[in-house]
Amino acid sequence: MKLGVCYYPEQWPAERWPVDARLMVEAGLDMVRIAEFAWAKMEPQPGAYEWDWLDHAVDTLAGAGLQVILGTPTVTPPAWLTARHPEMLRVDANGRARRHGSRRHACVNSPVYRVHSERIVRAMGERYGRDPRIIGWQIDNEFGGGRTARCYCDACAAAFRTWLRARYGTPDALNDAWGAVFWSQTYTDWAQVQLPDEAIDKANPSQQLDYYRFCSDSYVSYQQMQLDALRPLTPGFITHNFMGLYRDLDQFDLARPLDFATWDNYPTGNTERWRTFLYPPGRPTDRDDPRYAWDAGDPIVTGMGHALTRGLKGKPFWVMEQQSGLINWGKINQGVRPGTVRLWTWHALAEGAEACVYFRWRPTLFAQEQYHSALLRHDAEPAQGLREVWALRNERELMAAIAAEPFAADVALLVDYDDLWALEIQPQRQGFHYLRHLYVFYEALQRMGVAVDLVPYDADLSRYRLVLAPTVHLPDGGVVERLRAYAAAGGTLLLGVRSGFKTPTNLVTDRPLPGLLRDLVGATVTSWQSLPDGVSVPLDTAMPDLEGAAAYWYETLTPLTARPLAAYETGEAALVENGVGSGRVVTVGWYPSSAQARALARWLLERAGAAPAVELPEGCLAFRRGPYTIALNFTDEPRTVALGGEPVLVGPRDVAVRRR
Amino acid sequence: MKLGVCYYPEQWPAERWPVDARLMVEAGLDMVRIAEFAWAKMEPQPGAYEWDWLDHAVDTLAGAGLQVILGTPTVTPPAWLTARHPEMLRVDANGRARRHGSRRHACVNSPVYRVHSERIVRAMGERYGRDPRIIGWQIDNEFGGGRTARCYCDACAAAFRTWLRARYGTPDALNDAWGAVFWSQTYTDWAQVQLPDEAIDKANPSQQLDYYRFCSDSYVSYQQMQLDALRPLTPGFITHNFMGLYRDLDQFDLARPLDFATWDNYPTGNTERWRTFLYPPGRPTDRDDPRYAWDAGDPIVTGMGHALTRGLKGKPFWVMEQQSGLINWGKINQGVRPGTVRLWTWHALAEGAEACVYFRWRPTLFAQEQYHSALLRHDAEPAQGLREVWALRNERELMAAIAAEPFAADVALLVDYDDLWALEIQPQRQGFHYLRHLYVFYEALQRMGVAVDLVPYDADLSRYRLVLAPTVHLPDGGVVERLRAYAAAGGTLLLGVRSGFKTPTNLVTDRPLPGLLRDLVGATVTSWQSLPDGVSVPLDTAMPDLEGAAAYWYETLTPLTARPLAAYETGEAALVENGVGSGRVVTVGWYPSSAQARALARWLLERAGAAPAVELPEGCLAFRRGPYTIALNFTDEPRTVALGGEPVLVGPRDVAVRRR
Amino acid sequence: MKLGVCYYPEQWPAERWPVDARLMVEAGLDMVRIAEFAWAKMEPQPGAYEWDWLDHAVDTLAGAGLQVILGTPTVTPPAWLTARHPEMLRVDANGRARRHGSRRHACVNSPVYRVHSERIVRAMGERYGRDPRIIGWQIDNEFGGGRTARCYCDACAAAFRTWLRARYGTPDALNDAWGAVFWSQTYTDWAQVQLPDEAIDKANPSQQLDYYRFCSDSYVSYQQMQLDALRPLTPGFITHNFMGLYRDLDQFDLARPLDFATWDNYPTGNTERWRTFLYPPGRPTDRDDPRYAWDAGDPIVTGMGHALTRGLKGKPFWVMEQQSGLINWGKINQGVRPGTVRLWTWHALAEGAEACVYFRWRPTLFAQEQYHSALLRHDAEPAQGLREVWALRNERELMAAIAAEPFAADVALLVDYDDLWALEIQPQRQGFHYLRHLYVFYEALQRMGVAVDLVPYDADLSRYRLVLAPTVHLPDGGVVERLRAYAAAGGTLLLGVRSGFKTPTNLVTDRPLPGLLRDLVGATVTSWQSLPDGVSVPLDTAMPDLEGAAAYWYETLTPLTARPLAAYETGEAALVENGVGSGRVVTVGWYPSSAQARALARWLLERAGAAPAVELPEGCLAFRRGPYTIALNFTDEPRTVALGGEPVLVGPRDVAVRRR
Repeated sequence: MKLGVCYYPEQWPAERWPVDARLMVEAGLDMVRIAEFAWAKMEPQPGAYEWDWLDHAVDTLAGAGLQVILGTPTVTPPAWLTARHPEMLRVDANGRARRHGSRRHACVNSPVYRVHSERIVRAMGERYGRDPRIIGWQIDNEFGGGRTARCYCDACAAAFRTWLRARYGTPDALNDAWGAVFWSQTYTDWAQVQLPDEAIDKANPSQQLDYYRFCSDSYVSYQQMQLDALRPLTPGFITHNFMGLYRDLDQFDLARPLDFATWDNYPTGNTERWRTFLYPPGRPTDRDDPRYAWDAGDPIVTGMGHALTRGLKGKPFWVMEQQSGLINWGKINQGVRPGTVRLWTWHALAEGAEACVYFRWRPTLFAQEQYHSALLRHDAEPAQGLREVWALRNERELMAAIAAEPFAADVALLVDYDDLWALEIQPQRQGFHYLRHLYVFYEALQRMGVAVDLVPYDADLSRYRLVLAPTVHLPDGGVVERLRAYAAAGGTLLLGVRSGFKTPTNLVTDRPLPGLLRDLVGATVTSWQSLPDGVSVPLDTAMPDLEGAAAYWYETLTPLTARPLAAYETGEAALVENGVGSGRVVTVGWYPSSAQARALARWLLERAGAAPAVELPEGCLAFRRGPYTIALNFTDEPRTVALGGEPVLVGPRDVAVRRR
Repeated sequence: MKLGVCYYPEQWPAERWPVDARLMVEAGLDMVRIAEFAWAKMEPQPGAYEWDWLDHAVDTLAGAGLQVILGTPTVTPPAWLTARHPEMLRVDANGRARRHGSRRHACVNSPVYRVHSERIVRAMGERYGRDPRIIGWQIDNEFGGGRTARCYCDACAAAFRTWLRARYGTPDALNDAWGAVFWSQTYTDWAQVQLPDEAIDKANPSQQLDYYRFCSDSYVSYQQMQLDALRPLTPGFITHNFMGLYRDLDQFDLARPLDFATWDNYPTGNTERWRTFLYPPGRPTDRDDPRYAWDAGDPIVTGMGHALTRGLKGKPFWVMEQQSGLINWGKINQGVRPGTVRLWTWHALAEGAEACVYFRWRPTLFAQEQYHSALLRHDAEPAQGLREVWALRNERELMAAIAAEPFAADVALLVDYDDLWALEIQPQRQGFHYLRHLYVFYEALQRMGVAVDLVPYDADLSRYRLVLAPTVHLPDGGVVERLRAYAAAGGTLLLGVRSGFKTPTNLVTDRPLPGLLRDLVGATVTSWQSLPDGVSVPLDTAMPDLEGAAAYWYETLTPLTARPLAAYETGEAALVENGVGSGRVVTVGWYPSSAQARALARWLLERAGAAPAVELPEGCLAFRRGPYTIALNFTDEPRTVALGGEPVLVGPRDVAVRRR
Repeated sequence: MKLGVCYYPEQWPAERWPVDARLMVEAGLDMVRIAEFAWAKMEPQPGAYEWDWLDHAVDTLAGAGLQVILGTPTVTPPAWLTARHPEMLRVDANGRARRHGSRRHACVNSPVYRVHSERIVRAMGERYGRDPRIIGWQIDNEFGGGRTARCYCDACAAAFRTWLRARYGTPDALNDAWGAVFWSQTYTDWAQVQLPDEAIDKANPSQQLDYYRFCSDSYVSYQQMQLDALRPLTPGFITHNFMGLYRDLDQFDLARPLDFATWDNYPTGNTERWRTFLYPPGRPTDRDDPRYAWDAGDPIVTGMGHALTRGLKGKPFWVMEQQSGLINWGKINQGVRPGTVRLWTWHALAEGAEACVYFRWRPTLFAQEQYHSALLRHDAEPAQGLREVWALRNERELMAAIAAEPFAADVALLVDYDDLWALEIQPQRQGFHYLRHLYVFYEALQRMGVAVDLVPYDADLSRYRLVLAPTVHLPDGGVVERLRAYAAAGGTLLLGVRSGFKTPTNLVTDRPLPGLLRDLVGATVTSWQSLPDGVSVPLDTAMPDLEGAAAYWYETLTPLTARPLAAYETGEAALVENGVGSGRVVTVGWYPSSAQARALARWLLERAGAAPAVELPEGCLAFRRGPYTIALNFTDEPRTVALGGEPVLVGPRDVAVRRR
């Protein structure tokens, strides 16, 4: 496993660079990422490039023995450019144009921004693309960060109309696809079509979904423009730093043309932010807040970020920014106790990462991220983070051996951004969240030491014994056929609520529910509804450990070919299993609690003939890579983890590795 | 009682229409409402009307035996019109213009929107006005829905100035009416007068109230334009579908020129929305949340919507849209258990409705209301709602007999939108809400089986034994005289806090409080004030069951001619009774709790010589129409209701009818 | 002590004026403040002044024996002016221009507003400046009130660039001062610099701080323009009415050119508003809400407003508006029980006020402040407030004797708006508030009867035995030297968390923390961090009564020359004392709770050789002025206050005065 660090030479005097480079190498770091915000430094005046400083920085860093990753600086166009072309600035849903002074202020659909972006990327590529000291490139930075995925500028409006025209051909086809006859929305000319900004009260959900897709496609095409410019100029890898459970762009689409995926892993901040939807108020979970994890983030939440990033390309990934101390963008920004940074690094490795790049070398003395800590302190003394990187020096050999082993999972959890967006647009019940619906199963499996891949519908499913697809919301025939083929070949497929409800343009199916999936399910959904907090419908089942009641959302099932495994107290089926070819489809009719998901998962693993699950102690995780078992203990007390029959004592906030 | 359903033929293939029509008739439905959102279908291109589809729809529906109600489609102007005239779009308080893509996006003060609205209404009237299969018309749809009553566009600004000039004549008169000398607001030219949008920090409350009145008048005049166009063209009835406790328009003014009033009754959504002000946080109520009603709404909240709609014209009303399953516009949108739709229908009948039109026949497959259920399911199979309509077929004869009887109430609760708005503009104490002040008495009476009419100040009060006017906030001499005359003729009148405080232009009176009402009250209000949560002033009284303390808001009374019935612990009078002619005026000096309101109501009923009150079980309601007593049980258990001496057992979520 | 009242003759018929004037004099009032909102009355048409009414008002009031204070009416420019020059209107952070209809709607950087402001001030000064009946002037009204300190109009943008150019000279110097190299913010032309409004997502904190300073300076210069116009025209005093703990303007800067400071004291409203930051949610305090004070405000919160106003000029101050009954701008606006207005007046006197002007004589009958009570009722009868002023007539002689005595404090609490703003811009931990950090010490000292001055860094510190400077956040060398000199001369100085972290342009220091203060502290801050709610680090110390744990925010100290007084359970120092010359610097490494602050304060007072502290009963305050001890009891029960050895029984909501 390679380790690296993010560095901003432009923010420090050149005399300091060799000192920093030497300290990095001494700490055992292999790589350094630079330049992704330095456009104004590379091109201080229009067309007048200045490369001397960057040449010198590369010389210094590479000279000390570090491999260099270059970022294209397009997320921060310089002031002379935005001042000259204010039309390139993003516009929010209220119609207000962003201003210079932060980042991500330009719209990826702005023609002039694209021209200048391509120009600076090409200029960088020409100068550094063939430099063997540059091992690879990061395009831009955190696409869509700070909720910037969706813009409402005039360029976007025009591009959206073009996108729609390409998709639908005629306004009449658009009207059909959106059901625009409703409320006389009918369009007779493309120019009448609006962006669904806040000036439309309750926009048409088909319009919204298409707009979400268009925004995602806009980033895909903006990235492709950079790829097209860079690829011919460099043999190095090209990647992008994604954001884990970030929801506003289709990360599968973005990852497709990249060499591998990376993500920015901030366990405390991500946990604080993602828990708002993973653990919604009135949430159907029985798991307490993991208080031991106040300074480490929730390890299962973090793990889902790893697993999704691994699934983006179905192969090893990098952590391109790894939290290395306290952050500045949360609400609390708590300190991080000793041992945590090391544990985060091990966690990444255990989940399949092949490199980990710490953010950042030294805290900035100025501007927006002053309070964000780093491996050094502001005064250049070592901070806690660096001490932990030092500690890792003794473990690097073992880490390398583990990194060489493949990460393999028996279970897949299917993720689809169209489904996610459609449910975000119409949650119907406050707090209903697609990712939480996935998370409840991910959590159940993690607590049993079962590895899970998060992959898209078009992944190769044949390698999995169990595939979980909690909400296949707007499937087309291709998706249904793929799922059918998987089950028919002997697989075990789980489906859940709100499946098959919609068509690909976000209309409701007029078939009996679950629409195209009914044959697979072997039952009809005869009713669906949410339940208020405090109201639930008792379950009756013989499945071991499956107890309690359906809450939050439930659907009644009338079996056609399936056999019921559980019923509501009303007598209607709640859970059914349908034989499909040599496999089976299990459909759960309610939004399960954590405990229910564990019972279901345990039963499904057994049914699928997967490796038997264990029960990990709260706050502990365990993974296998090849012959290695890696057990992580995030709590403050020693814990015994039984993996493969051999109980292992793992110290407080420590890791234990066993080789079979 | 007639039953009907809302139908959108434009959203379904014409081949389906006869099937739907047949099913409607088989379900016992008498009527169908159509067309109120179909402008783009009637006039797909400017001036090019297309009536064939609507002719065919009317033929099909009427041919099957259904009476047809036509809606004018003005709430949804087509895209070609809004694109051509963007100046017709509504502007919100932030200055942002609405866009096409939803409904209610045009401003009723827009001259061009008025021209086109009148044109389409006249065209419809000319084609269908004399058609005997069309029994009547609904103008537009839910005026002001989605908080659209108030617009801030340039056309509104101009119209507001015209409205003010007509009301006040000169800027100096306006300055006097608004007290514009305060903070140098003084206007010397009409052009200086602004709409009180959010760009004015803390607007003048007289300006605000006049703006609220102007907005209401704008809808009145917009509706009148449609009435003027339609009346000469049709002998059918003309109505509008109101929204119960909706607060932003004066529903009495709007109802005046209509033939009768109707409303859209969504018990679960309305309860969720209205409880925010009927049961405010820190509310002075002792009534628990009626949890049994989680899927039925709070029946007393629903009942207040019925009672107000009945009061709009002082005669039988319709439910023009009746919830028939789960909805899509609430926060939870819970499912509805069997029996509820039937009970809602009976409740409407019991409260004086003579027709009930279910919303809607089949759920839309597209656009904003996809998740709103209907009598059918999306796949055209019967939903729970239709099964309940079927169940009603056996009861239609009894329902018709009851509907033929008059609804009569001994008690009136006076409602005035000027009072409501003035208190909304200046609540003075967080959570003080005019309608909640009314509701506490309505609730008390409903729980005793006492019928209540909600009527305006200019209603004929002589028919009531008891008139409750909890806040007569900005009375003029006419209102005072009307109340005086009622009491003098032997009536019993209740007044409450914040009465007589203001003048009609929302200035404070300079007379001793309660201003013009002081002679009626027979006491002076010597102080008024709010109390923080947790602070209260104990009461001392001999009135039976009147216990506890004054909280929230209280006023001290110094009797002139009145006699005290209760005192605060400070010794000042809290409740007084004043003889007026052969009647009396009782004034309560604090904002009572539910329990206190019940004690007051019981005492007042006795004092007024009204029928003795009973104590209904929680969750049950009872009504009389002519010789019939209708008892409704919204709970999940059987309940015994004692009405007229004869105890009746009513099943869970059931209705029982007795004939005297 | 002089008493006065605010009066608005323009709001009442002239015939009423002599009655009011007589009643004021009979109540013992000495002064009356008028005219500060009456621009439209003075100049109803452009350039056409009308003074007759004001002449007559002055004649009437002065004729009755009242001294007159005139306010310049610039906070309320007339409608003809704003209509003619809409470019003078303020623009909010969303880019929306204010409108006429309220107050403070013009921008102090608007050139045209300045021209007209100067004109009306000069006109008033010429007419009334030499009139001996006018004893003084109030400039404008509540600068920045209603969160209007910061404007985002084009005039502000231009003025900000001018301000920056004057401060920094070149864009390059600005780039350095702001660290604009970060995220390519680098400016190459002044025109590129933007106001940090909401269109910039997460603005640069150096840019923000400079903008806050610029806004404050804008008010300072606007006030100076009025001072320059008035001074030559009048021998009377000139002041302004400040707003206590108001945070958006530097009140020290504004007070500098004034003759003395005054403030507007609304104990109930201020308590409600300021408690949101003085007692934040999850607050590190152990003090219950003082419920006895529901109608009186929290006396310690009120006291901090007095102390800060006294510190603005380091001399006696006035209360220019004193709440005299219930208000209208809070959330609850509770009533005020008898005795409270008198107690508030005594409290002001005890804290060093030499005059108290009640707001207002009679409640307005119209416009925004209708519900704000006054000394009279709306109907001109005496309200509770007037009865209390009457009661004071017997005490005026004693009050005058006390007012003649100096107010002296042994303890200073240092306040700096740059520090406040920097922490407001980057709280880093939700709820971290600079003023709360000060308040915890102020509260501790008040509860011990110890007088505290709130003064700026450049005050004469030599008169204090103890100086508390909880957060010296962005000190320059001058501040550090001043603090060093104070300690070296034998003083006792307390420093706290987040000290020395920043440079004056809001960059982080690159020195070991606490930066420039390290020599004074005698220790290095080796780590700093926040703690989530519910997480704390136990303390180990021998300091009496200092117990519990560090919560919320804590920093570890590594002593250089200092000696540790307390340690965290991790062993690192938490509290250190460093000898400096003949004095000492004590540094506390965490954000203390109320109880911890009391223990620290008691220990520090002893260490500093200050008068020994007493323990006052909850809800009581005690002050000394010369030979007088004034004990105030805000509770509802009699309390015994031991001051100077002699226990005094103070009645409920009463005051007791003892002369040594």
